[in-house]
Amino acid sequence: MFGSTFGNIFKITTWGESHGAGIGVVIDGCPAGLPLCEEDIQAYLDRRKPGQSRYTTQRKESDRVEILSGVFEGKTTGTPISLIVANTDQRSHDYSEIANYYRPGHADRNYDVKYGFRDYRGGGRSSGRETIGRVAAGAVAAKILRELGVEVCAYTLSIGPVSINRDLFDFEEIQNNALFMPDAAAAKEASAYLEKCMSEKNSAGGMIECKITGVPAGIGEPVFEKLNANLGKAILSIGAVKSFEIGDGIRVASSDGLHNNDAYRMDNEGNVWKKTNHSGGITGGLSDGTPIIIRAAFKPTPSIASIQESVTRSGEELDISIKGRHDPIIVPRAVVVVESMAALTILDSMLASMTSRIDRIKTFFEKL
Amino acid sequence: MFGSTFGNIFKITTWGESHGAGIGVVIDGCPAGLPLCEEDIQAYLDRRKPGQSRYTTQRKESDRVEILSGVFEGKTTGTPISLIVANTDQRSHDYSEIANYYRPGHADRNYDVKYGFRDYRGGGRSSGRETIGRVAAGAVAAKILRELGVEVCAYTLSIGPVSINRDLFDFEEIQNNALFMPDAAAAKEASAYLEKCMSEKNSAGGMIECKITGVPAGIGEPVFEKLNANLGKAILSIGAVKSFEIGDGIRVASSDGLHNNDAYRMDNEGNVWKKTNHSGGITGGLSDGTPIIIRAAFKPTPSIASIQESVTRSGEELDISIKGRHDPIIVPRAVVVVESMAALTILDSMLASMTSRIDRIKTFFEKL
Amino acid sequence: MFGSTFGNIFKITTWGESHGAGIGVVIDGCPAGLPLCEEDIQAYLDRRKPGQSRYTTQRKESDRVEILSGVFEGKTTGTPISLIVANTDQRSHDYSEIANYYRPGHADRNYDVKYGFRDYRGGGRSSGRETIGRVAAGAVAAKILRELGVEVCAYTLSIGPVSINRDLFDFEEIQNNALFMPDAAAAKEASAYLEKCMSEKNSAGGMIECKITGVPAGIGEPVFEKLNANLGKAILSIGAVKSFEIGDGIRVASSDGLHNNDAYRMDNEGNVWKKTNHSGGITGGLSDGTPIIIRAAFKPTPSIASIQESVTRSGEELDISIKGRHDPIIVPRAVVVVESMAALTILDSMLASMTSRIDRIKTFFEKL
Amino acid sequence: MFGSTFGNIFKITTWGESHGAGIGVVIDGCPAGLPLCEEDIQAYLDRRKPGQSRYTTQRKESDRVEILSGVFEGKTTGTPISLIVANTDQRSHDYSEIANYYRPGHADRNYDVKYGFRDYRGGGRSSGRETIGRVAAGAVAAKILRELGVEVCAYTLSIGPVSINRDLFDFEEIQNNALFMPDAAAAKEASAYLEKCMSEKNSAGGMIECKITGVPAGIGEPVFEKLNANLGKAILSIGAVKSFEIGDGIRVASSDGLHNNDAYRMDNEGNVWKKTNHSGGITGGLSDGTPIIIRAAFKPTPSIASIQESVTRSGEELDISIKGRHDPIIVPRAVVVVESMAALTILDSMLASMTSRIDRIKTFFEKL
Repeated sequence: MFGSTFGNIFKITTWGESHGAGIGVVIDGCPAGLPLCEEDIQAYLDRRKPGQSRYTTQRKESDRVEILSGVFEGKTTGTPISLIVANTDQRSHDYSEIANYYRPGHADRNYDVKYGFRDYRGGGRSSGRETIGRVAAGAVAAKILRELGVEVCAYTLSIGPVSINRDLFDFEEIQNNALFMPDAAAAKEASAYLEKCMSEKNSAGGMIECKITGVPAGIGEPVFEKLNANLGKAILSIGAVKSFEIGDGIRVASSDGLHNNDAYRMDNEGNVWKKTNHSGGITGGLSDGTPIIIRAAFKPTPSIASIQESVTRSGEELDISIKGRHDPIIVPRAVVVVESMAALTILDSMLASMTSRIDRIKTFFEKL
Repeated sequence: MFGSTFGNIFKITTWGESHGAGIGVVIDGCPAGLPLCEEDIQAYLDRRKPGQSRYTTQRKESDRVEILSGVFEGKTTGTPISLIVANTDQRSHDYSEIANYYRPGHADRNYDVKYGFRDYRGGGRSSGRETIGRVAAGAVAAKILRELGVEVCAYTLSIGPVSINRDLFDFEEIQNNALFMPDAAAAKEASAYLEKCMSEKNSAGGMIECKITGVPAGIGEPVFEKLNANLGKAILSIGAVKSFEIGDGIRVASSDGLHNNDAYRMDNEGNVWKKTNHSGGITGGLSDGTPIIIRAAFKPTPSIASIQESVTRSGEELDISIKGRHDPIIVPRAVVVVESMAALTILDSMLASMTSRIDRIKTFFEKL
Repeated sequence: MFGSTFGNIFKITTWGESHGAGIGVVIDGCPAGLPLCEEDIQAYLDRRKPGQSRYTTQRKESDRVEILSGVFEGKTTGTPISLIVANTDQRSHDYSEIANYYRPGHADRNYDVKYGFRDYRGGGRSSGRETIGRVAAGAVAAKILRELGVEVCAYTLSIGPVSINRDLFDFEEIQNNALFMPDAAAAKEASAYLEKCMSEKNSAGGMIECKITGVPAGIGEPVFEKLNANLGKAILSIGAVKSFEIGDGIRVASSDGLHNNDAYRMDNEGNVWKKTNHSGGITGGLSDGTPIIIRAAFKPTPSIASIQESVTRSGEELDISIKGRHDPIIVPRAVVVVESMAALTILDSMLASMTSRIDRIKTFFEKL
Repeated sequence: MFGSTFGNIFKITTWGESHGAGIGVVIDGCPAGLPLCEEDIQAYLDRRKPGQSRYTTQRKESDRVEILSGVFEGKTTGTPISLIVANTDQRSHDYSEIANYYRPGHADRNYDVKYGFRDYRGGGRSSGRETIGRVAAGAVAAKILRELGVEVCAYTLSIGPVSINRDLFDFEEIQNNALFMPDAAAAKEASAYLEKCMSEKNSAGGMIECKITGVPAGIGEPVFEKLNANLGKAILSIGAVKSFEIGDGIRVASSDGLHNNDAYRMDNEGNVWKKTNHSGGITGGLSDGTPIIIRAAFKPTPSIASIQESVTRSGEELDISIKGRHDPIIVPRAVVVVESMAALTILDSMLASMTSRIDRIKTFFEKL
């Protein structure tokens, strides 16, 4: 597999399986001089940690991050930052049973076909624990973005049939409920729905939205490296994502030019502004200075306790029921993963944009 | 801009503006020995050519492709294939007017902010003509894929409010109507809707679906280079795309595990098959051997003759109305662009997958 | 072949064979706002043009460059710059004879083995004409470097047994003689040696040195992207180069620490300087602000009129004698190629270095 | 720094400083199914370990490697292989003194200029310990190459003024002496020379040669990814290397075509062979099936106990004398580093060559 590296300038490489020694990430290209400590990263990891609510697996995963390189006297040195989270709670015996059959909705069979065999313990590399590397690196990217005036905030838009009421959107509320919904009433309703799913040995899907503010206009590269295309790849690379939207997204298909175009006006300070933001902050692949809005649909947790039809490696049909401790929904723990992937993409694109003009390059080197 | 290269092994680099000397693409990494002539490529370009129906601009663009390198005695040599399409019908005066103001829904302002100035003639690099390079390269990728038993087929799913009836889906019909819809009745209805849009100086959006068959299981790389993530980036890099879906896409958010998981069974030949294909042929980022189904939403053509609010480079507000010849809808001409980007992505991923197993690598070199 | 792209930020992709329609290069990542015209590039191409002295082939190659994209109103737009040089003087019949046997010292057989067949006309892609793309792009890189205060100058150090006298080094002289030697006497002596080679149907090798001044300290990236490593790859990628040195180069093997270390002192302006420059301006892979000195050995032209032993594709031994018009030495025409590859490498490394510090990144974005 | 990744398909990313928690490497793209254990890697690390002779520092570095991921049930899984070597013998106080001045011949000052400050403990990232990551990954690459019939062997050619006698070249002898010289007499003489260097508080340079056999013809990519260019970059990226040669290397500059060209003949089995190998196994950037011969010059260890002139960060001149335990020569411990970088480059190029022909690609996928 050579798919474990993401980014061109702020480049990360993740490694690790569900039941190996641990999960890690190497950040190459982090600028020097950034104050960084393990707490900066731990705060993000704690948001994806299981066992925080009854809707996330009760596995005890301490998930403590350790900085192995790249930081000296509290600041990044410009050399690779190696981060590791040891795997502690490993009950391989829980998984021995699935070694021989293919779990529906999982990548088990695809791995066997591609590699000839697989690490069946907890899904190995295809486990959700793989996202630990994304979040650890995303925490560093987000800290740099804050220094540059950019904020990235993701939240739960819907769980199963329960959606938030946009008229009641409350940013403060996001951190108040275990589902990270910006609408207390919807969170309550969604909780009830999840109880029902659990009692029926079933699972639920949901939708996450991410709002990015403070990105200057002109970020992204035309044609193949459009900012929306890279955000799309980043989010679609998260395990359970099946759709990606920007701005009005899928609704533009049934809209018309008069309503979909964002009209330009001047504000009192003499700055250009848009009367609407159907575009979601990006047009022609370049940011326009307005908030960037993206959305992703997450499929229901494939591991369910109900009876399912499957086959074995050797080709026998059988009925299975997944044992073990599994979230009835992926969404709440995925919120910080979406934030992390968005932060990594935006930072990498901003750094890439520094060479777009000869006059700015000249100024940069004259000042050295 | 360093965003004009796509692909890692079958790597393409496009160039050219709407009103420069021409549009071109360099294909680096095309395997040697492939029979290739200009007709192979022209057939694809003709599908995106304007002036084919009254729903596409009446501009006369001959768009003839010329092979400048990489083919000797009718076969690819393994060296870069340089393809060029000369720009013929250039009426710069049509565009001089828009030099000073920013067209709503276009990237005009973002280019000015990013680069300090822009080639305002027909949108320059951000023009839809940029897709000529994608389609020319996509035609070569698609020809290789056919040699490998892979077929890529895109079609129009909806235009404005008019969607096809899946029960009447007819592959033969796709090439029979100017809108490339697999449903004659829907095509007729959509045509009437487009007439209305044009009479109202408005434009329409729509949805394109693409079905890819024959891809072996195990294509794609885990984590960041998932096949669906790369397909997403490829499609989202097409100018007007605002959403990308795979399989059930956005519908998985409101589904549940029991219904969304694809159960495995054995067929009479002793092969594994899936009772359903909610996943759209990819799980865990790897193909599973079933048809790959992707969808994209295209926004309405931003260039409309109706009055719109805009601003000038120097900051004056004004009301504008876009002159010139513009499609009332992007979708029909974008169908072959979607096919091309999908073909480029699938081929590149298949070539990358050749090194996944040591036993296959040994066999390969032993046979040399 | 996917080896036709060079550079990460200022990225070039070359294409074309000796006897195809032409040779070209696409520059992706050129900053916007650079004044650029065809004369800027032609001046460099003219330095590698044949027929300028009796020591270069008398083939008439006009080699006129044409800018096809990326420049608007005399300035680069930030979009890909496509440059083409049409092949004019094509006498394929001159080459038909070599279609069946393998020229010693050439890549003929290696291409046949790798690709299954080859474009035998003038060596196809392995022809020296391939360097036209490097020089055209190098001219643009060099123009940008001059804007940043960086000068790149290459010259001939030796031809066969004739070396320059460093005590008589004269920069002015470089452009005064057809061999680009900074020593008139050595140039005269070398000319006599070349006459002898020609009369004996033989060819000569030689050495080129390149001096790069004005590069700020700290350019290059530690470990694998050391500036000297990238300069080495750039120069070693030129057809006939068999060695690369930096600073004292090969002589350091027999030196000792006391003599090889460059001592630091302070000058009257309070700046650090080095008493010597054995390192050639780079230590630890990073520039130190002193002149960068690199050297390369070029093998003798493999195409000679003398009788040589060879074999045919089908495996018969035969004695051959290369017909046609060939330089008795590669070096003089390669001087500008070395300059171009050095310029491309230095520029790309300087652009990459802009993201090395968080404080500089903050300043950059605050000023937008 | 984003220079810590090497390779395109078999891609490695190294991390770690001299005095951090440890040194590590992540291998992404290792094919699945390769039997791999820590002993395979330890054997290579032991060859670069210090304290093996009196000519290498007496620091006790156990340098035990640990496999953290990517191996399951004794075989590689195709997922990233994370390798770590803990830093044990860390005497930071030894280095505190050099925090304020710049060691001649070291990168201290360049790091300060580039990053604004540096990890001064033992050179931080610029320490020779960085090569642990290269060797650990190189051991894996070499094991794969052996499965493919490729052998990579490096040895010491010269130390200071003492060179081996090629007529007495003895492969068996390489592992018999602490200097890894294939000539016992030369090794004895070189040892005496090193004694002298040490007694004079001085250090020595030297030359390493590497011979690679079993590489099939046609490996490497024309133009910028020539096999010799990538080997050059790989070797020149090793800290103290100041020159790189292939085949006759620097000697070609004074040679002539008649003598430098390698003539082709047929052997009794009807295979093509070359009467000589001046080219060093590569022509036109592609391997020709004969042994690949490369050489590199290593500068003398810059850390010497003699008095040297230097300056402080704040600009005062001072005379220094490097304390601590330092090798009087880098060469012996660098032999395995050269082998490792060569192995990584050859393997990556071989994997890349698998897609050069359409017929081979078709055969590959038909057999799945």
